[in-house]
Amino acid sequence: MTETRGLRIALASRPEGRPNPGNFRLEPIEIPQPGAGEVLLRVLYLSLDPYMRGRMSAAKSYAAPVEVDAVMEGGTVAEVITSNDPSLAPGDIVLSFSGWQTHAIAKAKHLTKLDPQLAPVSTALGVLGMPGFTAYAGLLTIGQPKPGETLVVAAATGPVGATVGQIARIKGARVVGIAGGEEKRRYMQETLGFDACLDHRDPEFVAQLKAACPNGVDIYFENVGGAVWDAVFPLLNTYARVPVCGLIAQYNATSLPAGPDRTPAIMRNVLTRSLTIRGFIQSEFISQRPAFLADMSTWIREGKVRYREDIVDGLENAPEAFIGLLEGKNFGKLLVKVA
Amino acid sequence: MTETRGLRIALASRPEGRPNPGNFRLEPIEIPQPGAGEVLLRVLYLSLDPYMRGRMSAAKSYAAPVEVDAVMEGGTVAEVITSNDPSLAPGDIVLSFSGWQTHAIAKAKHLTKLDPQLAPVSTALGVLGMPGFTAYAGLLTIGQPKPGETLVVAAATGPVGATVGQIARIKGARVVGIAGGEEKRRYMQETLGFDACLDHRDPEFVAQLKAACPNGVDIYFENVGGAVWDAVFPLLNTYARVPVCGLIAQYNATSLPAGPDRTPAIMRNVLTRSLTIRGFIQSEFISQRPAFLADMSTWIREGKVRYREDIVDGLENAPEAFIGLLEGKNFGKLLVKVA
Repeated sequence: MTETRGLRIALASRPEGRPNPGNFRLEPIEIPQPGAGEVLLRVLYLSLDPYMRGRMSAAKSYAAPVEVDAVMEGGTVAEVITSNDPSLAPGDIVLSFSGWQTHAIAKAKHLTKLDPQLAPVSTALGVLGMPGFTAYAGLLTIGQPKPGETLVVAAATGPVGATVGQIARIKGARVVGIAGGEEKRRYMQETLGFDACLDHRDPEFVAQLKAACPNGVDIYFENVGGAVWDAVFPLLNTYARVPVCGLIAQYNATSLPAGPDRTPAIMRNVLTRSLTIRGFIQSEFISQRPAFLADMSTWIREGKVRYREDIVDGLENAPEAFIGLLEGKNFGKLLVKVA
Repeated sequence: MTETRGLRIALASRPEGRPNPGNFRLEPIEIPQPGAGEVLLRVLYLSLDPYMRGRMSAAKSYAAPVEVDAVMEGGTVAEVITSNDPSLAPGDIVLSFSGWQTHAIAKAKHLTKLDPQLAPVSTALGVLGMPGFTAYAGLLTIGQPKPGETLVVAAATGPVGATVGQIARIKGARVVGIAGGEEKRRYMQETLGFDACLDHRDPEFVAQLKAACPNGVDIYFENVGGAVWDAVFPLLNTYARVPVCGLIAQYNATSLPAGPDRTPAIMRNVLTRSLTIRGFIQSEFISQRPAFLADMSTWIREGKVRYREDIVDGLENAPEAFIGLLEGKNFGKLLVKVA
C-alpha cells in the first residue's frame, strides 16, 4: 500500500446555533511519515458524539475548543499501516483519537490495541468505549441505583442512554426510557426491555411520564436538558440524584429562553427535596475503567446489555451525520466508516 | 409554683411575601397537666430560625406546614416543672420542641436532658444544637473541605454560617465570609478570623468577592441564595461543591424574577465544571450527632469555634424578631428569652 494522499475535515468556521455544512471543510492531506515511537494509522471508524458541538465553539468548557482550520477532533478505531514502535505491528487495530481524517500519526504509547476476537472493534467507540463508560461511571457513582427505585433516562436508544437504562435494570431499578419517535420507542420496548417506553414528541408526553412514574423519580440521568428536564423535575423524589452528563437539547441554542428566571424555583426544590445535581465527565472516573470493561464484556456476552450502531459510510458524510445527531436523527451509536 | 395560665403565639394567617405582625396572634393558654410518661415544661429559650418561614406557608416542603390557628413550631430549652416520668425531675433543663409558648407538655422520651455545667443551656439551640449540626454535617459530608481550598459562606455571622466558616478553617481551607453591614464584617475579621470578610451591601461587592477568590471557589455553602449566589456562581471551580442549606434571600418572594430563564446556563456550568449541587436537611445525617457533639465541644473549649447570641426578651416580641431575622437584622444566633 503506497497511499500518499488522504482526506480530513477541518473546522472552517464556528457555528452560530445549529451547525451547517459550511462550518466544515473537506480537504486533502499529505500522508505523513511516523517518527520514532510513532505509527501511521489508517482510520477505520470515526465516532460522532454530542460533545463535539462544544469543541466547535470558543466558549470555555471542560476541554479547549478546536481551532478554526484545524482538523475536527474525535475518537477513532484505526489500523496500523507503518510502525516505528515495537509494541505495534502493521495490521494491528487500535483505539486512537485521530479526529475526522483518513490517516494520522500517533505515538504508540497513546494507543490501545484492540482484540477483534473479543468484540467487533467498532464497539470500542460505543458500548465498550467512551459512551458506555460514561453511562457506567455516571450511573453507578452518582446515580447509585437501588432495587425498586425508578430511573428516567432520555436519548434512551443512544449509546449512553441505552446503556444507562440496561445497567439500571441489572441493578434492580425500574427504568423509564424516553426517545423521539415510534420506531425508537418500540426498540426500547422490544429490544432494551425498559419498564416504560415514551416518545417525547407525543403531545401527551408530560402526562405519560407522570403516569409512568407513580412512585416519583429517584434517578434522572440527564443527557438532554430542555423539555425533558422540565417534565422530569417536578417528579423528583426526596434524595433523588441527577447525574448531568449532557444537554444536547440546548447545545445549538444562541440565547437563554424567555423568563421568568426559574433559578430560585430550582434551588428551592434542591433544598426542600434534598436533591443531588452533579455534572461529570467520564475521565474523572478513569480508575473504574478495568471494572467497566470486565462488567460490560460480561453483560454483553450474557445478553443483558444490547447495543445498536448507526453507521454512515464515508468521511465526506460526517458533517451531515453530525448535524443530524444534534437533532436526534441517528438511531444508535453514530459512527462513520472511513476506510 | 402554681401558675395556671400561660401564653402562646399561634399562626393567625399565612403570609403573602414578607410576614407581618398580623400573621401572628398572642393568646392565653391553660397550663395542662402531664399524663403518664410526660412532663410539664416551662420554656426558657425559644429558637428563631429561617426554616420557620417555610412552615408558615402551605407549599410542600420537607416538613408539613403549621396549621392556621395552631401554635408556631420551634426548638426550645425548657425547665421541667412537673414530671410523671422517672427519667426527669423538676428543675431539670431539657432540649425540647415546644414551639412559641411559655408552657408545654412533652413525653419524657422525646427530651434531651442538658448539663448546665458543660455549656450554657442556650447553646443547645445554637452552636451545639441544630444550627451547629447543620453546619457540621453539611460542610463535612457534602462540602468536604480540603487544605488550601477556598470556601465561601454568606450569613456568616449567623449560627450556621459562622460555624461553617470556623470548621472550614480548622480543616485548613481559606474562608471568605459574607455578611451585611460593617459591624458584622468587622466581627468576622476580628472575632471569627476569616481570611477575607465582605459586606454584601457594598456597591463593589461583586468585584470584591472576585478579588477575594483569586483561585476560584471550591465550596460555596449556600444558605442565602439571591444576589450572593449570582456573584459566587461564576467563580466556582471544576469539582466545586455547593451544599444547599437555606435560601433566606428568597423565602419572602411571591413570584419568580424576570427573565431570561437562566436554567440552561446553570445546567451548562454544572456539566462543564463538574459541579455538585446538593440540598440537605440536617436530620439526614443524624448518625453523625455523637461525633458532632464531641468535636464541637472540644473546639469551643479550645477557642477554635466562637459563637454569638442575639437574645430578645419576652415571647410577645418573637414575631417582630422573626420578621427581622428574614431581613438579616439579627446579629448572631437569635433566641427569645421566654421565662
